[in-house]
Amino acid sequence: MENILLILTYIAVTASAVSGALEARKHEMDIVRAMTIAFVTAFGGGTMRDLLLGRTPIFWVVDPFLSVITFFAALISFYWIDRIPKPLLNVPDAIGLAIFSILGATYAMQIDASAIVIVLMGVITGVFGGVLRDLMCNRIPKVFRQNTELYATCSFIGTWVFVICIWIGINSLAASILGASTVFILRLIAMRFKVTLPAP
Amino acid sequence: MENILLILTYIAVTASAVSGALEARKHEMDIVRAMTIAFVTAFGGGTMRDLLLGRTPIFWVVDPFLSVITFFAALISFYWIDRIPKPLLNVPDAIGLAIFSILGATYAMQIDASAIVIVLMGVITGVFGGVLRDLMCNRIPKVFRQNTELYATCSFIGTWVFVICIWIGINSLAASILGASTVFILRLIAMRFKVTLPAP
Amino acid sequence: MENILLILTYIAVTASAVSGALEARKHEMDIVRAMTIAFVTAFGGGTMRDLLLGRTPIFWVVDPFLSVITFFAALISFYWIDRIPKPLLNVPDAIGLAIFSILGATYAMQIDASAIVIVLMGVITGVFGGVLRDLMCNRIPKVFRQNTELYATCSFIGTWVFVICIWIGINSLAASILGASTVFILRLIAMRFKVTLPAP
Repeated sequence: MENILLILTYIAVTASAVSGALEARKHEMDIVRAMTIAFVTAFGGGTMRDLLLGRTPIFWVVDPFLSVITFFAALISFYWIDRIPKPLLNVPDAIGLAIFSILGATYAMQIDASAIVIVLMGVITGVFGGVLRDLMCNRIPKVFRQNTELYATCSFIGTWVFVICIWIGINSLAASILGASTVFILRLIAMRFKVTLPAP
Repeated sequence: MENILLILTYIAVTASAVSGALEARKHEMDIVRAMTIAFVTAFGGGTMRDLLLGRTPIFWVVDPFLSVITFFAALISFYWIDRIPKPLLNVPDAIGLAIFSILGATYAMQIDASAIVIVLMGVITGVFGGVLRDLMCNRIPKVFRQNTELYATCSFIGTWVFVICIWIGINSLAASILGASTVFILRLIAMRFKVTLPAP
Repeated sequence: MENILLILTYIAVTASAVSGALEARKHEMDIVRAMTIAFVTAFGGGTMRDLLLGRTPIFWVVDPFLSVITFFAALISFYWIDRIPKPLLNVPDAIGLAIFSILGATYAMQIDASAIVIVLMGVITGVFGGVLRDLMCNRIPKVFRQNTELYATCSFIGTWVFVICIWIGINSLAASILGASTVFILRLIAMRFKVTLPAP
């Protein structure tokens, strides 16, 4: 299980780093700012999770390779952005959202938190890196804008899917894949068909 | 004493959740955003307090009922806002400010912090949830706006009242009530009579 | 070594408090807001460092004199701003940036973090107080604005100088002075000659 969590962390961090660098590049930032935003996006969610759960030192302080990977993922995507087909630009963000949600929920489970706290931790971990990225690109984060496609809601539903899978005894790898896929697919659908919440 | 702290925490969290949901509703946000803001307002101050004092896992990770209460408090106040008389709209915020200030000071006392740190911790815990709520509603937080009624100052004075009460030997329940009432009444007075700090 | 770290902390906190108060005064804030911003600037970077490294309770919770010093440094600089020659206004910020960078790197070294994490921790610790200050003065932080003089980059280079000095066996006091001086001088040069990063 530890190995799976490690692999998931690497994928989520890489995807988030790419999404941070791409977003910074879209806002015509220079490489230092893009790198900063990539690091914050890649490490933000997991850092918040570790702080809230009392898992210190934080995950990326313990594992230096995460910083190396973030560095190169950001560097490459910053300079290669023009070669990336437009429809793919939002995929890394969706991957980070999906996997970080499951990771947050998993670590909350490990300290025997109850279901509602597990789901909250999933959503916070999934969403937080992207919120910081959007704030640093000087935009209202996706979570808070009106008339924007579902974002935190995807993470919320997918984390519940994961929790329920674990409850009914599905093994954690399958549950993780199911939960993360739910977040990911919901997010893609929400963007594709511009699904928004009804105004009050 | 533990029981009193628990009850105070429940009141403060509920009041802050209500204030978050009301504020979100005023800005015409949908229920998911209102819920997010309610949770951040309810948990923000205490989370910052627990992080700074090294009390992890954080209080709401340990006690799932806080999340349940926040959820329902936000839900009800979001849909009932129209039935709440206007002058009462700022009361929940004042209650949260008052009680969280005392809670922050109390926990800082428990690790034998000195008076100035205790007061700082009171102000941070009292103010932080509201600051995050205002930021998420895309406003300059009350603490930082010019020509706004006293906010952090009320928390500052009330926390000093609490600390001095403890110093002169008043029991902690009475001291808590006195301190919290001071914050609460000062805040109401400040809003009613639009008391502001003199410009420099 | 502990004594040196203590002295460096006092200098960095004082300088940052001054820079916070001056910045607030420039934005015509009142004394309570200026005090708030001074505290956040003085304590922000070190707080983030301690949280990430799991050093709790946080440094300023443990040492109450830091709060006292911040209070008076902010008070004096707030009321004396008109007597400070204009070119000196950015010096406290540069001192805080320089020393906090080295402090962040040093504490990361103490838990045997690897070089890239040490440097990241240096940059975060150096930059974070100033970022919060700028946010609270309702500006885009220096790190994120376009066409602004080098800021995080100075911290990055100086922290590497410090790390390399330690590697090649220079004693930690000399390494700290070399590293901090590098950050400080680079920052002054960047401001004096308006050195910016090339746009992408």
